[in-house]
Amino acid sequence: MRFTLLPLAAALFSTSALAAPAPGLGYDIVEGLTTEVGQRLAGTEAEARARDWAVAHLKSLGFANVHVEPFDMPVWVRGAETAEVVSPFPQKLVLAALGNSGATPDGGVTAEIIGFPSLDALKAAPDAAVKGKIVFVWHRMMPTQDGSSYGTYGPIRFAGASIASKKGAAAMLIRSIGTDHHRVPHTGVTNWADGAKPIPAAALSVPDAEQLERILARGKPVMLRLTLTPKMVGTHQSGNVIAEVPGADPSAGIVLIGGHLDSWDLGTGAIDDGAGIAITTAAAKSILDGPRPQRTVRLVWFGAEEPGGFGGAAYAKAHAGEKHALAAEADFGGDKIWSFSASFAQPKSALRDELAARLNLIGVEPKEGAAHGGTDVGPMVQRGVPVIDLDNDGTRYFEIHHTADDTLDKIDPAQLAQAIEAWSIMLRTVVDTNDPLTPLAPRKDEE
Amino acid sequence: MRFTLLPLAAALFSTSALAAPAPGLGYDIVEGLTTEVGQRLAGTEAEARARDWAVAHLKSLGFANVHVEPFDMPVWVRGAETAEVVSPFPQKLVLAALGNSGATPDGGVTAEIIGFPSLDALKAAPDAAVKGKIVFVWHRMMPTQDGSSYGTYGPIRFAGASIASKKGAAAMLIRSIGTDHHRVPHTGVTNWADGAKPIPAAALSVPDAEQLERILARGKPVMLRLTLTPKMVGTHQSGNVIAEVPGADPSAGIVLIGGHLDSWDLGTGAIDDGAGIAITTAAAKSILDGPRPQRTVRLVWFGAEEPGGFGGAAYAKAHAGEKHALAAEADFGGDKIWSFSASFAQPKSALRDELAARLNLIGVEPKEGAAHGGTDVGPMVQRGVPVIDLDNDGTRYFEIHHTADDTLDKIDPAQLAQAIEAWSIMLRTVVDTNDPLTPLAPRKDEE
Repeated sequence: MRFTLLPLAAALFSTSALAAPAPGLGYDIVEGLTTEVGQRLAGTEAEARARDWAVAHLKSLGFANVHVEPFDMPVWVRGAETAEVVSPFPQKLVLAALGNSGATPDGGVTAEIIGFPSLDALKAAPDAAVKGKIVFVWHRMMPTQDGSSYGTYGPIRFAGASIASKKGAAAMLIRSIGTDHHRVPHTGVTNWADGAKPIPAAALSVPDAEQLERILARGKPVMLRLTLTPKMVGTHQSGNVIAEVPGADPSAGIVLIGGHLDSWDLGTGAIDDGAGIAITTAAAKSILDGPRPQRTVRLVWFGAEEPGGFGGAAYAKAHAGEKHALAAEADFGGDKIWSFSASFAQPKSALRDELAARLNLIGVEPKEGAAHGGTDVGPMVQRGVPVIDLDNDGTRYFEIHHTADDTLDKIDPAQLAQAIEAWSIMLRTVVDTNDPLTPLAPRKDEE
Repeated sequence: MRFTLLPLAAALFSTSALAAPAPGLGYDIVEGLTTEVGQRLAGTEAEARARDWAVAHLKSLGFANVHVEPFDMPVWVRGAETAEVVSPFPQKLVLAALGNSGATPDGGVTAEIIGFPSLDALKAAPDAAVKGKIVFVWHRMMPTQDGSSYGTYGPIRFAGASIASKKGAAAMLIRSIGTDHHRVPHTGVTNWADGAKPIPAAALSVPDAEQLERILARGKPVMLRLTLTPKMVGTHQSGNVIAEVPGADPSAGIVLIGGHLDSWDLGTGAIDDGAGIAITTAAAKSILDGPRPQRTVRLVWFGAEEPGGFGGAAYAKAHAGEKHALAAEADFGGDKIWSFSASFAQPKSALRDELAARLNLIGVEPKEGAAHGGTDVGPMVQRGVPVIDLDNDGTRYFEIHHTADDTLDKIDPAQLAQAIEAWSIMLRTVVDTNDPLTPLAPRKDEE
């Protein structure tokens, strides 16, 4: 390799020599995408409009090789969704169907509620206690900076409906997997396990879930009428939008970065994942506007992440034969980057030290343990591509995640600018490092 | 008068001698009412259930003379409400019809938007510019501790639709009169001026209003499809629920306190006005549980405040012949009391000093200027009844006011307890004062 690593001393005196993101570019991207397209559910006409917007925007920024790589996917769309307590205290509740939810009859289903404080409690319940009832599972998820509480409570959404279905439940309600107290429910996919018949499944907003918990605590049988009419509408086209900053040495491998272009249908996808699109694009632009990089930066605005990572899978299939030096993904909002981790073939290296020293200058601390990427670059990471995680502060992420409240006003321009600076520093370091970025062994645990 | 005023010195050493609100009673009331009844729109079956709940609850607390005083009122109910930008950037917007809104045809109305940054700008626009269009008025309301910004921006809601209607507008949209950034619009009445034909009128949530403002700022014509199907459903019964703590001296006049039992239909009416009900009831209970008061405390849970003060008007009509010594109303949420004002016949008095000294012990400061009461006791205040305002901190009130987010979790138990203590201190002082509480001249300015 013929790369010149910038001396560490230079980094310590001037991060601006490393990274010069265009002022306001990141915010402009998320502002434009959320305003001029709005929600962009995967596989729909809105996501197609988002791809048109993306191609025009990426070309106007001067990126090379801007194009769409289409793929097909099954599409689920929301229908009517209402719920009301029939007795003992008649009142309406606010909810949103989970992605892949089954449907009730158009007139709804009325059944008794059986409540559980955890997924374990549901698992432990005898089938006879659940059969024919509407299961309701709540929890006490709290905000965490690293997002770990989503890992703890997320399975209530991912896996809960399958468990309820196998026990013969009429439907499944969960307390939203979120940390806010607004009447805006948190959607997201539920996955049907082998042998689990799809049943109606929805998330109550947190205030509504607390209300239902209080009503149940009165000790009287609680009857609820639920109407959900979502449906699978067949196979439709989605696509990944790709743009590049060509490197001087094609043999050195591609640096793959990106976020996802699709959003859930309730909000305008500002933090999920307009922010990730904005951060990675502004960072790539800092490379485009700086000295020619040794490695090629490939920026991907992935399609159809939310319903199950269809864009990431399509990318990995289409690009399996290309040498990838590194992968990194931004899909955890637009707040400041506070830590990073890296999975390289060598546990210790000058590159790791260099990254730590440079990122430390803007407050980012190194974390022990493996980096993982995310849903979009995950398939490449599984194959052994080295990966860096730059961790956004997640403290307020799950107040907003997958809700109608995911709108532009939730973007903090100052924090977004810091995140772009962190990404620009990381990117400039890895495109020019003389570290060979040797692949790791394929990761079975990530599959 | 034969009343014994507690010595000021005693107050300075022990406020607990003055006020002993039952622990948790206030919170229990707002918890029970919002959980077991939920929303209770004026004139509906839900408000009737709330009156049943009220009578049972007030009797169980030991109040005397618990009864309902019914009255009739016109009832407006919400229908379907949807809005979508048709061009140039197709997307749905979240809104809520304003009380008294007219209806669109069932299939909606599609028209061009004309936007104004203020009510003054709308007033200044030529009729020809507005005719046939959907008017959209935005603003920059900010939180204020004393709620004054509601006075500044409220007329956009109260009066804006009439102005738009007289100019020939097809419909009226406003940015919610609120200070939050959630997809939960703020409803509330709009008033039709003489000669103004009701038109469809709704409030966009703040994020949706900002989105529409950004879309308009792109400079292209913006077409919007609006569907609102609310209707007036005729005259129905509402009622005031009354309870008393009988005083030793009926000739000394009634101390009238209360809040309103009805709520808007979107939330469960925790801060508006479950909190006011809770505060005044817990304070009255502290009198019931203490030494027998000289004056009678009359507690009223007013009906039908939100659609236009029907309960307060009915009370004033029914009780015009009775001597009222004082009126005070709690209808500004459950946060801490930070200031108070009083309108007495004498600008200076031992009673005013006594109130200031006692309330000062829990952080409440006296304010210059007149007290006003509110919509419910307003008609009595207009007739010259002395009035005290205990001012809740309004900093977060308009984040929640008239939205689906007005739910129990917005009640801060510690702040609610302080508010109850302030009311208990005030109430004990006025029921036993030897100040005659002479009526003022009727106030024309309040009518």
